Amino acid sequence: MNMKSVSYILGWVLNIEAALMSLPLITSLIYNEGEGWAFAIVMAICALIGFLLTHKRPNNPNFRAREGFVATALSWIIMSFFGCLPFYFTGEIPRFIDALFETVSGFTTTGASILSDVESMSHCCMLWRCFTHWIGGMGVLVFLLAVLPMVGGTNMHLMKAESPGPVVGKLVPKVRYTARILYMLYVVLTILEFLLLMLGGMIPFEAICTAFGTAGTGGFGFRNDSFASFSGYIQWVVAIFMIIFGVNFNVYFLVFMKKFKQALRCEEMRWYLGIIAVASLLICANAYDAALTLEHNLRTSVFQVATIITTTGFATANFDVWPAFSRTLIVLLMFIGACAGSTGGGLKISRWVMSGKAMASYVGSFLHPRGVRKVRFEDKDVEDSTLHAIFVYFMGVFFIFTVSMLILALENMDLTSTFTAVAATFNNIGPGLNLVGPTCNFGFLSDLSKSVLIFDMLAGRLEVFPMLMLLYPPLWKEAYREHQRKQRRRDAMKR
Amino acid sequence: MNMKSVSYILGWVLNIEAALMSLPLITSLIYNEGEGWAFAIVMAICALIGFLLTHKRPNNPNFRAREGFVATALSWIIMSFFGCLPFYFTGEIPRFIDALFETVSGFTTTGASILSDVESMSHCCMLWRCFTHWIGGMGVLVFLLAVLPMVGGTNMHLMKAESPGPVVGKLVPKVRYTARILYMLYVVLTILEFLLLMLGGMIPFEAICTAFGTAGTGGFGFRNDSFASFSGYIQWVVAIFMIIFGVNFNVYFLVFMKKFKQALRCEEMRWYLGIIAVASLLICANAYDAALTLEHNLRTSVFQVATIITTTGFATANFDVWPAFSRTLIVLLMFIGACAGSTGGGLKISRWVMSGKAMASYVGSFLHPRGVRKVRFEDKDVEDSTLHAIFVYFMGVFFIFTVSMLILALENMDLTSTFTAVAATFNNIGPGLNLVGPTCNFGFLSDLSKSVLIFDMLAGRLEVFPMLMLLYPPLWKEAYREHQRKQRRRDAMKR
Repeated sequence: MNMKSVSYILGWVLNIEAALMSLPLITSLIYNEGEGWAFAIVMAICALIGFLLTHKRPNNPNFRAREGFVATALSWIIMSFFGCLPFYFTGEIPRFIDALFETVSGFTTTGASILSDVESMSHCCMLWRCFTHWIGGMGVLVFLLAVLPMVGGTNMHLMKAESPGPVVGKLVPKVRYTARILYMLYVVLTILEFLLLMLGGMIPFEAICTAFGTAGTGGFGFRNDSFASFSGYIQWVVAIFMIIFGVNFNVYFLVFMKKFKQALRCEEMRWYLGIIAVASLLICANAYDAALTLEHNLRTSVFQVATIITTTGFATANFDVWPAFSRTLIVLLMFIGACAGSTGGGLKISRWVMSGKAMASYVGSFLHPRGVRKVRFEDKDVEDSTLHAIFVYFMGVFFIFTVSMLILALENMDLTSTFTAVAATFNNIGPGLNLVGPTCNFGFLSDLSKSVLIFDMLAGRLEVFPMLMLLYPPLWKEAYREHQRKQRRRDAMKR
Repeated sequence: MNMKSVSYILGWVLNIEAALMSLPLITSLIYNEGEGWAFAIVMAICALIGFLLTHKRPNNPNFRAREGFVATALSWIIMSFFGCLPFYFTGEIPRFIDALFETVSGFTTTGASILSDVESMSHCCMLWRCFTHWIGGMGVLVFLLAVLPMVGGTNMHLMKAESPGPVVGKLVPKVRYTARILYMLYVVLTILEFLLLMLGGMIPFEAICTAFGTAGTGGFGFRNDSFASFSGYIQWVVAIFMIIFGVNFNVYFLVFMKKFKQALRCEEMRWYLGIIAVASLLICANAYDAALTLEHNLRTSVFQVATIITTTGFATANFDVWPAFSRTLIVLLMFIGACAGSTGGGLKISRWVMSGKAMASYVGSFLHPRGVRKVRFEDKDVEDSTLHAIFVYFMGVFFIFTVSMLILALENMDLTSTFTAVAATFNNIGPGLNLVGPTCNFGFLSDLSKSVLIFDMLAGRLEVFPMLMLLYPPLWKEAYREHQRKQRRRDAMKR
């Protein structure tokens, strides 16, 4: 294990986090809030540790997949650890585990909250809370790649470990260039939403928080009723931007390159938009409220479908009181997820489409045993290794789900609450059903359950394997053996 | 499509069904019940149609995988159709869809019932109801193979389509011989259980019904409280025999061949017994009832774990009132299932073990990218094609689950009831939770929901693909084209 390169990356992550905290610090100055001191202190700590870890560049170019996984998992963990300190120090979230839960929920763009009254929070903490969504949405390592020249295979392995979706092939060749374009598109779209929200009469602070939450497909609200009390125009803007941020960024990349035809042909996007359209119409018909207008009904169903499939988690209606058909559809959408290469979470459209096609081609193979039927996706043959990776990914999901549900079951909640608590955090959505429904929060859970859900949020955001890798004993045994070997060599050289 | 061979097989299935109905007919004579006439009439109909379909042997040796699938699916459908007629004709189940549900539930060894008062049924109908479990457990086509010489690849393709589990390789070489041994072992074990139950003071009729239900891992009870009112001895016997019938019959085959060491080394059996032991202890601790003895508590948990993992569905306790941890564990066990090659249903231990190993080997491959790590199971390398088959099978399960849940959701039940109704029927278990829990029944559902669950029971028993094949349009398009081609050739020859 090349720990020097890993700790070098961790150091840079802390440097960046220190820099990013200047935003809430400035906010505290604008609103003249005393809570700013907490950010100043944490910034200093991050910068100090960051400096110590980065002042010497490692010269070992050996950076493999495992280093990529470990660096990514650890980056997200320390980022969350230091990110939660301001909440804790200011006393706005008095318990450490709650502050950590809230911050992990922020960075992983889950949006599950332990707060029952968000409106009492200071502006600087609220801004930091929403800003974590924006940072986590595109990924802090992708940002690192955009600004920092790295050695050897570092780029590719970091990008692979942090980017969501089964294939990152398309983006890999010129990682640095791509990472910059991605962040630029991300910033432009966020600003666009901000402006459209301002046009609708939102105050700047709320428009910033909303734009951050939508762009990262996060879902922290800043009002206790999430988006129910906003105007129809604002709700439409948010719904449409949630859908926009759930699209594979490859599409926007192609648009940027002026390859419009290719952009429109993106198969994953077409499935994604198709599913949203069908699900919205079904729910609109099933949960129709005759007391409201057709537009209002349609808006409510589109908003809720968008919020769940993109794994954002904003809400304009309490879908927990809808009829069973709509509730079941919502739970199924939780497992579909957004497009790969978007800021959305979940299991990803492309995985399901490829799996479904693999199944159809398998059934077809009994009809024509001799004709080899390849699975095709996005106009290309899907490699067997990709299908295998999807299979083991699903198994990893199932494994984490099983263990998490059994531990959560110790809370003695009903099965729906237990199941959707895990589903909503692992898929980075936010609200579940029943006890963890849109009008409730996760604050009442035990510390054990919160720790499990913290793990699940990270595992969901990083797509299972980086987190499983951290818990894989042979990795650490081998790292220890390597360390011993080096030690002995050094001793031998001394003699 | 070689329809002549398919209908020849269907004809034999009807002949066998007519012969099997002599058992309830005899019962009606013993108990002097007027309901026997229904069996006599249905026997006559079956025998007549069977004779018409089988009097000429087909000479087309072309019997491929697709014919195997179609023949198997259709066999089970017509077997259920004719099997339900006695219930309907006697008026013991007054509605046809209910009678069909009950019979499919019997043949597929599900044990989900629409009856609220089973004790009022006549002896002959009750015996037929339990006998369907026994017939369906080992499979009627396996029986066919044991008694009837077939042409070409017929044996293998039928065996493959009807036998549960991811691999049937071991059993294929001498199909006829193997099928006979399997049925012999099945009969011997059933008789053994019958005798042990008689020793415990059960009356012969109940002992026969219990033995049939246990052997097929079916689960129809003949008392309204299932097994709660029986003695501890009887409950232990039933629990142990449920476990015995959930073991891969390969093990008994090896014991029969006096290869004891090899039998004991069966990896799937060891996982299976290990899971039963751990789950029983966890539930015993979690749902411990201080008012009862330790033995009683242990017996209750072993019985319920055995009944769910083997997908039998008998009950001695209402696990729906247990704490959440135990209920969650029960739901997870529903998805594990028994061993492949047993009479039990579910997704099968071997599939999960191979999948889990594939996942571990995938994580390991990041540690040693160059070392090819094969997945090993039962001391052999697992082929990639086997893993792919497991993957598409899981996808098929997921697909059927999704569609079924959405249709069931129209009943407007709670999510747990909807989910476990599908899980309990697809996995051929019987009782679910809440509205379809152990003390309830499926009678209140709409005809649409019942039809969906009938499909699910068949799809679960036949492991997805034969039933999906029936719904696969290209199959029928091609069969129709083939038919047209033949017609034209015949016309040309006439001229």
